[in-house]
Amino acid sequence: MSYTGYVTTGSVCSRFHKAVELIGGRWTGPILQAVLADRHRYADIKEAVPGVSDTMLPQRLRALEAEGLLERRVLPTSPVRVEYHATEKGSALLPALAAVAAWAEDWIELDAGSAQEVHSA
Amino acid sequence: MSYTGYVTTGSVCSRFHKAVELIGGRWTGPILQAVLADRHRYADIKEAVPGVSDTMLPQRLRALEAEGLLERRVLPTSPVRVEYHATEKGSALLPALAAVAAWAEDWIELDAGSAQEVHSA
Repeated sequence: MSYTGYVTTGSVCSRFHKAVELIGGRWTGPILQAVLADRHRYADIKEAVPGVSDTMLPQRLRALEAEGLLERRVLPTSPVRVEYHATEKGSALLPALAAVAAWAEDWIELDAGSAQEVHSA
Repeated sequence: MSYTGYVTTGSVCSRFHKAVELIGGRWTGPILQAVLADRHRYADIKEAVPGVSDTMLPQRLRALEAEGLLERRVLPTSPVRVEYHATEKGSALLPALAAVAAWAEDWIELDAGSAQEVHSA
């Protein structure tokens, strides 16, 4: 995997920053992972992403659809059934998310205060 | 590479977001890469990171030192010589940066306007 382009050309740098924005978007990783783990319906995705609210989840699903990471399918059943599927672009993002998560797990220490906050939440 | 922890525990999620912030920091990647490519002195790093200014570079070097990604060494020569070296934490970040850069290169399209802007800069 070459890393050279990132340094030498401005357009690659802009692409990189757009990617970081997407990756850093709240719930992007957990939602994508849930969908890739065969959870395609709203209720199933919600169950797989602990802590996400019914305000936040529809908003994030729309955003991920707008970014081309998820595809929303309306199945012509009665009543209609809505499913979310990862696009090729969305699936391809997982290794990058996993690499960032792995580094974070190894190297980022949380201060006692914020760890406390998380555990009691 | 497991991705599960990111989803299930809040503290991993906070770590992840701190990592994304670091990765998204301006020039983080290019500077780290230059240092890892054996450019240890200010002038050599500057040459390897096209477009970085003499205001921005010292600021970013200090920030990366504060985050524990770079180490600043003052060698007791006459005159003293200052060198920057990647820490283990800094070196370990490169695969994640490379994974994000690779995905961005494959999947992020710049609109004509911003591509133009970059090329004429």
